[in-house]
Amino acid sequence: MTIIGMQVLFDKTQTQDLLSAMPISPQLQINSDRLKADFEELSDIGATVGGGVSRLALSNEDLEARAWFANRVEEAGMMIRDDEVGNLSGVYLCSDPDAKTLLIGSHLDSVPNGGRFDGALGVLVGLECIRRIKEENIELPVHLEVIDFTDEEGTWLSFFGSLGLTGMLTEAHWNDTTEDNGAFRVALFRAGIRPAEVRRAHRTDKEIVAYLELHIEQSEVLAKAEKQIGIVTKIVGRTTYNFNFYGEATHAATTSRDEQRDALQAAARFITGMHSMAVEQYPGGVFNCGNVTVEPGAYNVVPEVTSLQVELRHYDETILKEMESQIVRLAHEIARDYRVTVGTQQVLHRSVADMNPEMQTVIEQVCEKQGRTHMPIISYAGHDAQILSKTCPCAMIFVPSQGGISHSPKEFTGWQDIEAGANVMLETILRLANSS
Amino acid sequence: MTIIGMQVLFDKTQTQDLLSAMPISPQLQINSDRLKADFEELSDIGATVGGGVSRLALSNEDLEARAWFANRVEEAGMMIRDDEVGNLSGVYLCSDPDAKTLLIGSHLDSVPNGGRFDGALGVLVGLECIRRIKEENIELPVHLEVIDFTDEEGTWLSFFGSLGLTGMLTEAHWNDTTEDNGAFRVALFRAGIRPAEVRRAHRTDKEIVAYLELHIEQSEVLAKAEKQIGIVTKIVGRTTYNFNFYGEATHAATTSRDEQRDALQAAARFITGMHSMAVEQYPGGVFNCGNVTVEPGAYNVVPEVTSLQVELRHYDETILKEMESQIVRLAHEIARDYRVTVGTQQVLHRSVADMNPEMQTVIEQVCEKQGRTHMPIISYAGHDAQILSKTCPCAMIFVPSQGGISHSPKEFTGWQDIEAGANVMLETILRLANSS
Repeated sequence: MTIIGMQVLFDKTQTQDLLSAMPISPQLQINSDRLKADFEELSDIGATVGGGVSRLALSNEDLEARAWFANRVEEAGMMIRDDEVGNLSGVYLCSDPDAKTLLIGSHLDSVPNGGRFDGALGVLVGLECIRRIKEENIELPVHLEVIDFTDEEGTWLSFFGSLGLTGMLTEAHWNDTTEDNGAFRVALFRAGIRPAEVRRAHRTDKEIVAYLELHIEQSEVLAKAEKQIGIVTKIVGRTTYNFNFYGEATHAATTSRDEQRDALQAAARFITGMHSMAVEQYPGGVFNCGNVTVEPGAYNVVPEVTSLQVELRHYDETILKEMESQIVRLAHEIARDYRVTVGTQQVLHRSVADMNPEMQTVIEQVCEKQGRTHMPIISYAGHDAQILSKTCPCAMIFVPSQGGISHSPKEFTGWQDIEAGANVMLETILRLANSS
Repeated sequence: MTIIGMQVLFDKTQTQDLLSAMPISPQLQINSDRLKADFEELSDIGATVGGGVSRLALSNEDLEARAWFANRVEEAGMMIRDDEVGNLSGVYLCSDPDAKTLLIGSHLDSVPNGGRFDGALGVLVGLECIRRIKEENIELPVHLEVIDFTDEEGTWLSFFGSLGLTGMLTEAHWNDTTEDNGAFRVALFRAGIRPAEVRRAHRTDKEIVAYLELHIEQSEVLAKAEKQIGIVTKIVGRTTYNFNFYGEATHAATTSRDEQRDALQAAARFITGMHSMAVEQYPGGVFNCGNVTVEPGAYNVVPEVTSLQVELRHYDETILKEMESQIVRLAHEIARDYRVTVGTQQVLHRSVADMNPEMQTVIEQVCEKQGRTHMPIISYAGHDAQILSKTCPCAMIFVPSQGGISHSPKEFTGWQDIEAGANVMLETILRLANSS
């Protein structure tokens, strides 16, 4: 196989030899107390009453978290780097100025009243790992860089930072003529991001050797299987759709039932039908109708327009496409049955992202060596790694989420699990860096 | 039977004798040109681009229509009367100052961009009938009063005027602590309506002998049966309900399907179930879900709260109550199946209103005499007559609506139908007045 930039490591025939030949420090561990202190300090920025955080991308709280992060980078004697889309990094340079960079990161922003772990943990663990390596004056053949990506959560535009870094942002993203993006442009401006300069954030695999991300699982698969570490194999593909059913607004009481053309009846039938299809045909798929609006919206008026916001996810791109065409077909069938019409519009499509198999093998070997239970796992949530995977080899390490709860103040991961994940990350970084 | 105030006419054994003995003018006809000119002038007040009208209750347009109506009353030499809830009348007094009043009317207000006929026609026909009787100097044993009721359509509070006249308004109507009624109170104030004085608008059956209303059908029953006049037997009862389904807002992709508690799935199943129940068990009932809202309302979040606005109507009070308890039961069953909870709240209940059978007989006899085809008909729409029916005997005359369309600029009734209805009304007024 030929993954540009990692050919040496990822030539399957050579991997085992390289690993056994690597000059790693077997005892190197993260400084757990320091990581915990960092975590607690960061959790205070944008803290909410119920124990969560609100650090919406580009908000004062997000900017405060970045400033705090920059201070930590500076304290550690690392180089601060920021780019034209607001991504903020700490870099531990190696002695070869032409070396590539091994990128480790996640995001410091959160959803409104979200949890303290989602995103933040990945950045802090990345920082701690590099700090430890630097403290030990370990010389590596690559630069190490811990990065905070801008707006992963999509307060303004999901994955703004990682899309920018991979050169996938276009002017249409903030100049969408179908909506008023004024507030978004203002938010970018006050964070020092200039739309005209965004394309300069683009970095390629000529510069980045690979990307590693530690994240909470946000689900209960690890807990149920009683495993400590999840090694992500794929990040599911995601498609969002708008379905607009159009009937006729007539007086609900004076129009005979046979003559009513009720957009909401059709839409309700579509929602129940979609979920039946999910259960019967797509056990591995995600189907959600997250929002409904009705016009004109009065007790005594037959609904004229009913608009649905639907999301589909699957880990297999072919099946995801089939799910799409099946629900579009279902919508048209039901519309015909109810004598209404339907308009369907794909709003977003992110294809399935495969994590790099050889990087998964390295993580697996590290887990075995450190005595951590582990399993391959599919990520049903989106992560910056899925954007990066279009540019460079990527891998993700999951640590368990208590009760599978995330995007909530109740989000929780036990400290032992964090420590275990961080130490797996540290050794994985060393192995990958040394083999690059 | 003993209907207070109409005992003489409505003693069934005497009705026929009285009718044949009545000194009515057999040739009296409305002035069709004058009625048409009035209709066209009134239609210009609040006219909308598509040929409809917007005369929201208490708006400038509504106040302008009232002023125009007061001028017509004055021109006709009738007495202008207004009351403490803004109802505006023209009165043709008889010579006996202690006589009771035969009330004829409807409403001049409209829904936003509504039709020109709904309500307005009933007021104009009442005005024209009384004008003709007055022109002929016909002496009657009752006062005749044509009335425009305030806010029949419910811009602020459905039937505000007729509820006020029948003494059914309470302070809670404009001082509802669950919502901000400030704008309503301001609108009342600028129309000269003082909440403290509202109860003084109350009139009883000691004063009002009966109420008559001509209205467009708003449905296609007459047209399909090829009849010119509908004689209303009942106005359906109406109940509105809010159903709030409560689930849990979790990440749609990372929460396993079995653990999701989706308020919208339950609500969609309820909507389809309610309509199946309607078709299978209640052919004469009206079921409508007119609005849906979802919280938090994002593509990737399982709906936590789904709120439905539901309306039920039936012409049989017992069946209406049964429909209510059936859909409440259905909601609880479905909530249990989907592991969500549901809160049900009756928002409004108006019981079935029976029109007076003897007044229906009089209208029927007038139709026969004038050679108009006619039929008994149930009104599925609400009218001021349903409020008045709690106080005095009431009857309604329906004229056909083209295509059954109302609350729309497309609302239309042919002039011949209007003329026929107005002449039936004229003779009905004379017969009822003379027999009182």
